[in-house]
Amino acid sequence: MATTSTLVQQKLDQAVEILREQDVDLWLTYVRETMLTKDPCLDLIAGVYSAWTGAFLVSATGERIAIVGRFDAPSVEGTGAFEVIGYDESIRPALEEVVTRLAPRSIALNYSASDSAADGLTHGLWLDLQATFEGTQFADRFRSSEAIVGALRGRKSPEEVARIRAAAHETEEIFDLVARALAPGLSELEIADLMHAEIARRGLGYAWGRDHCPAVDAGPEKEVGHSPPGELRTRRGELLHVDFGVSRDDYCSDLQRMWYFVDEGEIAPPEDVQRAFDAVWAAMDAGVDVLRPGATGWEVDSAARATLVEAGYPEPMHALGHQLGRSAHDGGTTLGPRWGRYGASPFGIVEEGNVFTVEYGTAVPGRGYIGLEEDVLVTADGVEWLSTPQRELWLVS
Amino acid sequence: MATTSTLVQQKLDQAVEILREQDVDLWLTYVRETMLTKDPCLDLIAGVYSAWTGAFLVSATGERIAIVGRFDAPSVEGTGAFEVIGYDESIRPALEEVVTRLAPRSIALNYSASDSAADGLTHGLWLDLQATFEGTQFADRFRSSEAIVGALRGRKSPEEVARIRAAAHETEEIFDLVARALAPGLSELEIADLMHAEIARRGLGYAWGRDHCPAVDAGPEKEVGHSPPGELRTRRGELLHVDFGVSRDDYCSDLQRMWYFVDEGEIAPPEDVQRAFDAVWAAMDAGVDVLRPGATGWEVDSAARATLVEAGYPEPMHALGHQLGRSAHDGGTTLGPRWGRYGASPFGIVEEGNVFTVEYGTAVPGRGYIGLEEDVLVTADGVEWLSTPQRELWLVS
Repeated sequence: MATTSTLVQQKLDQAVEILREQDVDLWLTYVRETMLTKDPCLDLIAGVYSAWTGAFLVSATGERIAIVGRFDAPSVEGTGAFEVIGYDESIRPALEEVVTRLAPRSIALNYSASDSAADGLTHGLWLDLQATFEGTQFADRFRSSEAIVGALRGRKSPEEVARIRAAAHETEEIFDLVARALAPGLSELEIADLMHAEIARRGLGYAWGRDHCPAVDAGPEKEVGHSPPGELRTRRGELLHVDFGVSRDDYCSDLQRMWYFVDEGEIAPPEDVQRAFDAVWAAMDAGVDVLRPGATGWEVDSAARATLVEAGYPEPMHALGHQLGRSAHDGGTTLGPRWGRYGASPFGIVEEGNVFTVEYGTAVPGRGYIGLEEDVLVTADGVEWLSTPQRELWLVS
Repeated sequence: MATTSTLVQQKLDQAVEILREQDVDLWLTYVRETMLTKDPCLDLIAGVYSAWTGAFLVSATGERIAIVGRFDAPSVEGTGAFEVIGYDESIRPALEEVVTRLAPRSIALNYSASDSAADGLTHGLWLDLQATFEGTQFADRFRSSEAIVGALRGRKSPEEVARIRAAAHETEEIFDLVARALAPGLSELEIADLMHAEIARRGLGYAWGRDHCPAVDAGPEKEVGHSPPGELRTRRGELLHVDFGVSRDDYCSDLQRMWYFVDEGEIAPPEDVQRAFDAVWAAMDAGVDVLRPGATGWEVDSAARATLVEAGYPEPMHALGHQLGRSAHDGGTTLGPRWGRYGASPFGIVEEGNVFTVEYGTAVPGRGYIGLEEDVLVTADGVEWLSTPQRELWLVS
C-alpha cells in the first residue's frame, strides 16, 4: 500500500491541475484545533493534526505552502508535501506575506451552502480571515472552493480506488461470516453484535456511527430508516436486510445485503419477494447503464426511478447513489432527484474516477424490506464494480 | 455508568440554567452531514448523527426542540431529550415557525473567533441561516454562543468527572504495564507499539491522533514537541518521557510520565535530573495553589511560570494547562500566558467543576526532557486530583 504521504502528494498534484482547469489562483484551507473541528479537506491534502491556526495553501503555479504553529510544524514537514513556515506568536504576518507574494486574483475557501464536504471552514475562522485581510486588495477575492473540492474528492486516484475496493472486500467477508451464523430466531441485536466483534477482531473502523453500522432490519414490522438494531427476530417466510460499511486505511465501503428465511416446504423465494428483488435490480441496472462520464447526477437517478415506478413499485424516498471515499457520504455530485434537500448536488456531472454507491429498495408487505447496495467506479466508458454484486437473494433454511 | 442519554439530559438542564444566567433567550446548534463536519456541541447536547440539515434549539424557558430530516428523527427521538420535528423537503418552514413562536430577543450560534469548542458552525451553514432569516425581525439577533458553550463544556457534571477519572485510571494502568516492560535499549517505536496493543486489547480510543498518542521521547537528542515515536532508544544515564491519553466512554485523559535509566553504580537520579524534576513540580504546585473558582486563567499560569523561572529554568513555551473532557483540548478558559495565540482564553474565569491538565516541563542537557502532567478537578475551595500524581521519578535499572 502507498503511504499516506504518497497519497497526499497525489491529491496535491491533482489539486494544482484542478486549479488550472477552473482558473482559480489560490486555494486556502484554514483550520484550528482539528481535534475539535476538522475541515474534511485537511485529511485529503495533508493528513495531519493542527492545534494552532494553520493555513494550507495550494497555488495554480504549483506552490504548496503550510503556515502552522511551531509545535505543529514537524508533522507537516514529515509529509514532505509542503514548504512549511512555523510561527510562534500569530499566523497573520506570515499569511499576509505569502498571500501578498503570490498575489492571487482569486482565493478559494472551503465554504459551501450545498456541499458539506466543501464546507469545513468554520464561521469563526471566516471572521478571522476577514479581519486579517480587511483593507487589503485581497479582501474581496475570496470565493467558495465547492467546485475544486468536488473535483478533488471525486476523482479518485488508483490508490484511493484500491483502498475502497479493499474495504468492500473486508465487508463482504464479514457478510459471509454473518451468512454462516444465520438461523431463524436471531435478534437484530445479536446479528449486529456478531459484526461488531468481527470489526474489532480485524482492527477496522466504522463507515458511519456504530449505533447504526450495521443497520439490521428483520421482517415487516421494522421501520427501516435510521433506527438501530433491536429486539426484532428473523423468522421463516420473512426477509433480513443489512446495511453495513467499514473504514479501512481511511477509506470506506457501503453495502446492503439481503437474506430470505425459507418457510416450511419452500425451495425458492416466494413470487412476491423474488419479483421485488428483480425489480430493484432492474432499476439499479437501468441507472448503471447511463452512469458514465458526462452524465448528470439526476439523469442517472431518473433512469433507475422510472424503471422501478413502471414496474409498479413506489418511488424511493432517497437518491440512487452518493459518492464514497474517505467518508461514506463523500460529497460532490449525487445520483439523486432534483429535490430541494439535495441542493445543487444532483446537477453535478459524473467524472471518470468517481466512486458511487448504487442503492435502491422497496418494502414487501408481510415479508420485510428489500434494499440492495453496491459500490462502483466510473471508468472511461461505464462502470467497474468494486463490490461483488448480490445478483441472487440468499436463502437461509 | 449513566447512559449517554442521561448525560445529554444533564447537559441540557445545565444549558437552560446558563441561558438564564447569561440572559440569552435561545441557543441554536445548526448542523449538516455530521460524518463530514461535526459541531463539537452536538455530541454534548444530543449524541446523534444528522445526515440532513438539523437544528437543535434550547430556550431559556426550558424548551428543547430538534428539527431534523425524517430519517434522522428516530435516533433523536431515542434520546428522549427533545421534542422532535421531522421534515421531508426543507428545514426552513419548520425552523421559521419555531423561532417565530419562541420570539427570542437573542439567538446564540456556535461561532467564535477564539474558542474552537464554540466554533462548530460552518460558514456555509451560517450563510444558509442568513438566507433563511433575511428580512425577518430575527436577522440581526444572532450572536456568538462562546460564553454559553464555555460554561456548558467547562462545568463538568458528576458523571462527566467520573468518566474522566476512569480514563485517567486506565491510562495509569497502561503506564504500569510500560514500567514493567522497560529496559535500556528499547526504541521509542517499540514502547509505543506496546501501548497501542494494550489500547486495542482494552477497547479504548485515543485522546488525540494515534501517530502522536503516545508521544515517546527517549534521551537528549529528541526534539520534543509533536514529533512521533521513532528509532531513538532508551539508554542508561538518560530520561524517557511519555505523553499519553485515552478516550473511554467518550471522555479523555491526558498525562505525562517520566522514567530515568540509572547508570552503572547509581542508586538514585543524578543531581541535575532530580533538581529539574523537583523544580517542575514546585512550579506546578505553585499554580495548583491558586487554582480555585474565581481565579483568572493567566494568574494560575503566572504563579507557576514565575516559580520555574526563579528556580533558574527557561520559561515554558506553552500554557500550564487546558481543559479536558470530550476532547483532550476541551476549549474554554486556558491556564496560560496572555500571548496572542491563546486569544481570549487566558482571561477566562475558573469555575467549580472545571477539569484542567496541569503540565510543565524542562530539558536537562545530556539527559533528555522532563515533562509532567496531571489531571485535576476544580472544587469549591481548591482542586481534587483525578490522576495519581507522579511525585517520584521512576527508576529503571
